Amino acid sequence: MADPNDYKYEFFNVTFPAEYVAHVEINRPEKMNAFHEIMWHNLSKIFKKLSYDPNVRSVILTGAGDRAFTAGLDVQAASQGTLSRTASDPARAGNALRRHIYEFQDCITDVEKCEKPVIAILHGISFGLALDLSLACDIRLSTATTKFSIKEVDIGIAADIGTLTRLPYSVGNLSFAKDIALTARIFSSDEALQHGLVSGVYADKAEAYAQALEKAVLIASKSPVATMGTKHLINYSRDKSIEEGLRYTAVWNAAMLQTQDVKDAMLSGIQKRTPKFSKL
Amino acid sequence: MADPNDYKYEFFNVTFPAEYVAHVEINRPEKMNAFHEIMWHNLSKIFKKLSYDPNVRSVILTGAGDRAFTAGLDVQAASQGTLSRTASDPARAGNALRRHIYEFQDCITDVEKCEKPVIAILHGISFGLALDLSLACDIRLSTATTKFSIKEVDIGIAADIGTLTRLPYSVGNLSFAKDIALTARIFSSDEALQHGLVSGVYADKAEAYAQALEKAVLIASKSPVATMGTKHLINYSRDKSIEEGLRYTAVWNAAMLQTQDVKDAMLSGIQKRTPKFSKL
Amino acid sequence: MADPNDYKYEFFNVTFPAEYVAHVEINRPEKMNAFHEIMWHNLSKIFKKLSYDPNVRSVILTGAGDRAFTAGLDVQAASQGTLSRTASDPARAGNALRRHIYEFQDCITDVEKCEKPVIAILHGISFGLALDLSLACDIRLSTATTKFSIKEVDIGIAADIGTLTRLPYSVGNLSFAKDIALTARIFSSDEALQHGLVSGVYADKAEAYAQALEKAVLIASKSPVATMGTKHLINYSRDKSIEEGLRYTAVWNAAMLQTQDVKDAMLSGIQKRTPKFSKL
Amino acid sequence: MADPNDYKYEFFNVTFPAEYVAHVEINRPEKMNAFHEIMWHNLSKIFKKLSYDPNVRSVILTGAGDRAFTAGLDVQAASQGTLSRTASDPARAGNALRRHIYEFQDCITDVEKCEKPVIAILHGISFGLALDLSLACDIRLSTATTKFSIKEVDIGIAADIGTLTRLPYSVGNLSFAKDIALTARIFSSDEALQHGLVSGVYADKAEAYAQALEKAVLIASKSPVATMGTKHLINYSRDKSIEEGLRYTAVWNAAMLQTQDVKDAMLSGIQKRTPKFSKL
Amino acid sequence: MADPNDYKYEFFNVTFPAEYVAHVEINRPEKMNAFHEIMWHNLSKIFKKLSYDPNVRSVILTGAGDRAFTAGLDVQAASQGTLSRTASDPARAGNALRRHIYEFQDCITDVEKCEKPVIAILHGISFGLALDLSLACDIRLSTATTKFSIKEVDIGIAADIGTLTRLPYSVGNLSFAKDIALTARIFSSDEALQHGLVSGVYADKAEAYAQALEKAVLIASKSPVATMGTKHLINYSRDKSIEEGLRYTAVWNAAMLQTQDVKDAMLSGIQKRTPKFSKL
Amino acid sequence: MADPNDYKYEFFNVTFPAEYVAHVEINRPEKMNAFHEIMWHNLSKIFKKLSYDPNVRSVILTGAGDRAFTAGLDVQAASQGTLSRTASDPARAGNALRRHIYEFQDCITDVEKCEKPVIAILHGISFGLALDLSLACDIRLSTATTKFSIKEVDIGIAADIGTLTRLPYSVGNLSFAKDIALTARIFSSDEALQHGLVSGVYADKAEAYAQALEKAVLIASKSPVATMGTKHLINYSRDKSIEEGLRYTAVWNAAMLQTQDVKDAMLSGIQKRTPKFSKL
Repeated sequence: MADPNDYKYEFFNVTFPAEYVAHVEINRPEKMNAFHEIMWHNLSKIFKKLSYDPNVRSVILTGAGDRAFTAGLDVQAASQGTLSRTASDPARAGNALRRHIYEFQDCITDVEKCEKPVIAILHGISFGLALDLSLACDIRLSTATTKFSIKEVDIGIAADIGTLTRLPYSVGNLSFAKDIALTARIFSSDEALQHGLVSGVYADKAEAYAQALEKAVLIASKSPVATMGTKHLINYSRDKSIEEGLRYTAVWNAAMLQTQDVKDAMLSGIQKRTPKFSKL
Repeated sequence: MADPNDYKYEFFNVTFPAEYVAHVEINRPEKMNAFHEIMWHNLSKIFKKLSYDPNVRSVILTGAGDRAFTAGLDVQAASQGTLSRTASDPARAGNALRRHIYEFQDCITDVEKCEKPVIAILHGISFGLALDLSLACDIRLSTATTKFSIKEVDIGIAADIGTLTRLPYSVGNLSFAKDIALTARIFSSDEALQHGLVSGVYADKAEAYAQALEKAVLIASKSPVATMGTKHLINYSRDKSIEEGLRYTAVWNAAMLQTQDVKDAMLSGIQKRTPKFSKL
Repeated sequence: MADPNDYKYEFFNVTFPAEYVAHVEINRPEKMNAFHEIMWHNLSKIFKKLSYDPNVRSVILTGAGDRAFTAGLDVQAASQGTLSRTASDPARAGNALRRHIYEFQDCITDVEKCEKPVIAILHGISFGLALDLSLACDIRLSTATTKFSIKEVDIGIAADIGTLTRLPYSVGNLSFAKDIALTARIFSSDEALQHGLVSGVYADKAEAYAQALEKAVLIASKSPVATMGTKHLINYSRDKSIEEGLRYTAVWNAAMLQTQDVKDAMLSGIQKRTPKFSKL
Repeated sequence: MADPNDYKYEFFNVTFPAEYVAHVEINRPEKMNAFHEIMWHNLSKIFKKLSYDPNVRSVILTGAGDRAFTAGLDVQAASQGTLSRTASDPARAGNALRRHIYEFQDCITDVEKCEKPVIAILHGISFGLALDLSLACDIRLSTATTKFSIKEVDIGIAADIGTLTRLPYSVGNLSFAKDIALTARIFSSDEALQHGLVSGVYADKAEAYAQALEKAVLIASKSPVATMGTKHLINYSRDKSIEEGLRYTAVWNAAMLQTQDVKDAMLSGIQKRTPKFSKL
Repeated sequence: MADPNDYKYEFFNVTFPAEYVAHVEINRPEKMNAFHEIMWHNLSKIFKKLSYDPNVRSVILTGAGDRAFTAGLDVQAASQGTLSRTASDPARAGNALRRHIYEFQDCITDVEKCEKPVIAILHGISFGLALDLSLACDIRLSTATTKFSIKEVDIGIAADIGTLTRLPYSVGNLSFAKDIALTARIFSSDEALQHGLVSGVYADKAEAYAQALEKAVLIASKSPVATMGTKHLINYSRDKSIEEGLRYTAVWNAAMLQTQDVKDAMLSGIQKRTPKFSKL
Repeated sequence: MADPNDYKYEFFNVTFPAEYVAHVEINRPEKMNAFHEIMWHNLSKIFKKLSYDPNVRSVILTGAGDRAFTAGLDVQAASQGTLSRTASDPARAGNALRRHIYEFQDCITDVEKCEKPVIAILHGISFGLALDLSLACDIRLSTATTKFSIKEVDIGIAADIGTLTRLPYSVGNLSFAKDIALTARIFSSDEALQHGLVSGVYADKAEAYAQALEKAVLIASKSPVATMGTKHLINYSRDKSIEEGLRYTAVWNAAMLQTQDVKDAMLSGIQKRTPKFSKL
């Protein structure tokens, strides 16, 4: 079992509800789990650790409380920080902003880089950063009452932490993607499901969590060599040419097919028993 | 208000139905708004102008009359022009064709390059060029009676003005995309919506226009720095790697986050009033 | 008519149910059409031949019998071959595996490279390689009882013959794509249609075949210059930038628009008769 | 013969020193051929015209007078224009700058896009824009006394009209490229030749011109289908993968190899006479 | 030792002058080693075989006789074949040409794909295809009397078998590359060395061969895992981004660093003896 | 002045020989500055700090002592660490290696990512990692007695920390690049200069340092907005298409041209005095 004490970071709860399964909870419910700077740095640290933790094979991400997955950026905090910065020289101010955005993006991308599959449950208010963050996860589920919005244009900003970059790769209706990004309108799980932003909608957060856990346990029961590779190779392929995707995959599997897990999985299949795979 | 006199181009009506909103109407209803060469050059000129017009923040594109958004290329005109060209030397003929296709493509791409978001309403007959053109727009809406067809193979041509290029980036069902492109069959708004070609279907053209106008007004009420950036960054990201998309976005926002609009939008949010943004 | 004698390959039936239409049937029904090595080499040979056969303009791919399109890799055979290989030196073993995967991938990619459009009918058991293979086809249809699964993780493998590479380009819900790839769960045509993996679902194999044949005949009635170009250009464009897609298309059509078929198609349109196009 | 009257643009002389050869001279010698805005627009117009002019097959580019090819941007003019622009809103100022840079870049890129090969003679002072401009040409020659400098950092700017983009593709010593770009130091033809920036150095401008003319006449004597294709395909290939370069080339030549010029060139070769090719 | 009997192909001599070293000689000296169609197919077969032959670790490529490495395409043969083809339909003719060019390119690319490093000696007449071919090799050497020419424009053609694609990646002076491609002028080893086309020039063919053999023997003495990887990774990296190059390299070495050869090489280093590596 | 106390890292000396100039010295002369793991982590930390240090505008990198810039990887240390790792499961071992290579690569890439230009002096023994490391620097200088070698194949490895990736982008003779990478032969500054690996060769280390310092001081005297941008944009452009390079540059300069430095630099130019730029 992974050790919860390795994962003590302010504004996050990390627990291990099943063998090889981690649950990361954004924990600032009194502010609808809105993010300020320390939080994305902590998020990054947690997912970097999960990535290499041999006792973790899948991860669930939720927000604490029923009201919100996350309301997004804590605008009040931001308006006293980065967004209020003034400078006599727009080039130097711009350079500081660029460094800041890189850092912020990198923290969110660490969720995507986590070697283990991540399931996000978008529940309640899921605004702004909720999209940036969940689009860096692998599987997106939601509830009947989730309120989605790409909120950024409402504060004069083009979303820059990942939403505009990952959205066209994640949903199969570019017209819908632009509509929600340009209007900042609130939309429901129905639309999210219809146009491909989530792949499952459940009655409420509890049910969504139960389903996510079942899925996480299922994934954790597979060879970690196979699931890590599957996540890695889909992420690699999505923005490369077919030719590049295939060739890279072959090189990847040149090492990975040599795993003992293939033999164990096959034998277990024949023997109708559940295989046990050694740690990654 | 933008000046309609700046936009007097044959075969097009350009009006300004609301503040910061332009409406471009393809106006050759007696030929079902079919395009001949002067028309795509005019279209290009109109959208280049709209792109930099500080009085425009969003655009609606429709066809005049009820019968057709556009029936596509005016084949009769084309058959007396480009497509009938004969040459003793296929290389020289090919070179002339290549130059011609570049020009034609560039005109349609000027709709995509327009800095302001463009909403297309596909109504009635929407054949051939209707797809090339609307796929260069940002948001695609249609009506219960729209008849769609990628008509090109029926005249012995692989569509070359944008449909085959943009379609796989716009809809999330490649099997559907190839089906309609290979068979030239007529399909309905139901399929278009199901497979991601449009994001909204309305009873008739009037209702679709009313909804589009509402959307256009909503977009026009936002910071133009934010909406221009949002369109630009989604278009940029859709065909770059995630890494490239993120890094470019950071560089873009190094300048754009310095806008006064962020402060104005935040303050308006706090004061519960509608912000007024200065012109772009 | 194409000559069936040119297409005598073990484990495949190739017939010509209509003018210019080929039907390739995977024929190992007693093993649920599972693949062993000779089969992908034969598949490659068949599709290379179809690609250049002037008597073929569209292709249908099915599995023999009602039970399965294909159950995927014949794991038993594989476990005695490639997957059981042991080596004292993982580098040399890895190199042998890489060569093997390249070869296998290339065989499946020959279906994609076939100049003529290919319609796959996923019926019955459609596991593992069924996905790799059908994702290399152009149009995917299925039946009410099809059972889909990306089975690879269940044998300790990240799918490497094309599924993980082509899936994100084919379906418009990345969350769904990862879900099915990571869990290896069996899913139905409903989900496959909803999320964009197939574009048509029919009551049973017979009806699906009837519909596929109608579609194949329709495609075969068009100019082969136009349909070949359409397939080629969509495949080219899907993983290139919009700019590159447009420019390549123009260069392609510099030769292809000079075809006699354009004149024939237009004249036939005017004369309301079916055009006859010469062979490719 | 091309008609000089088609090419009357202020600050440029365009002449036709030999059949099918054009000579473009930057003509503002009293200011060392420094560029202000009207000049790059005129340059663009000239090269667009040359590109399609059937009477032109190769082009030479020089500066009027002995003192300078060009001293670069007319900084005085720029400091009263773009570079002095102030704005209360750095985002809006930035957007105006971006539009301006696009336009400026596009004008210079029109030299690269010119279908006919362009030979630049860098003579005398060749600073700043001299590099941006000549790097958009195909062949770069210089003289024993040419003074080169990437001057931009000396006015607080990273060169943005093409030098930093094209330099790494043009010279084979990245250390040298960065050295000259970072230090703005003046360097000689010796270094330019050694590190690959020019391919020929001549005693003085007159001799360089004589050699350039000989080369231009030689190029103009070849099939224009072949030379246009050669320029186009090298430019295409230089920044694409080998695989993409090869495949695009094949598609290009699908039309171009059908030229009558191949037969004429071969026959002329056998008959030991100079072929005459028809106009492009 | 490799078996010469495996390599009996008309117009080529394949010998094994040293352990693990193959020597491929183009053998049609009476026609200055000019290529007709059977020859590039044989060349492809030879290099595919060498690629997987465990007894081969490096390859030398020369032309038989003193007069020519190769005079290029046998134009007479070509003029009776592909280049003379006429067709009433330029699209169908173009398609046949495209297929033909793909095939021809693929044969030459098989030299590049050969897993073992290939050293070409350009001696005597080295025209046209000599460049296409040697640019697909790894190391290019020449002699004091080599006559180089990119001859294609002289027969009305833009070189399409690899020269225009690979040249900009191989030499560090784009101006030189375009000069020789556009003028078809004959140039010497001096220029070839100065501008980066070859990396060594020797007095005559015999000396060049002696040096090449020494180099080939040296390469063959290294771990084949290391040399194969080195060739593969440079070829991969040259046309990918730095980021992609690094990441692919890491995945490649995940398997390859596990080789026994590392331990053997280190131990041999300590023991000051020559390591013996097992076959690839 | 930067504070040396901020830069106390074992095995490195960091000093500030002139205003805005840092000097990083690899300091393990008793082992010829060979690297073990702590060293690349320290190197990374130093360059990350220099990147954002407002008191640093250019950096020089050398090795302590006269014998070596660096002899490369400390093979003895490596052979007890990573390279000796054995595992029953090659997939798990491979995954550990991949993680390790990523980390190592990232540390070296931090030199490239450092916003400030870096000048490397390759002196004495410059083997293996010396190339990986200096290729991540901007300007490479060497001495008359430098001994270069891409040593990796001699220990059974394809170089994976950057040499094979960056070399083809840095030198303009691919044949030379492959020769040195495949043979691991020792080569001199003559060859390094001729083929583009270094851009300056000096009598000895002292002179090279003097020249590097002069260059570093010169660069440090320029606007830091301009030099940072110049480094960034060349690095960006070198592996992107020309089109992408130009467009990114325009977006970058949208913020950067608004710097006060442009006005200061111009005014200083007119007033013939040295401008003082504020800190970055």
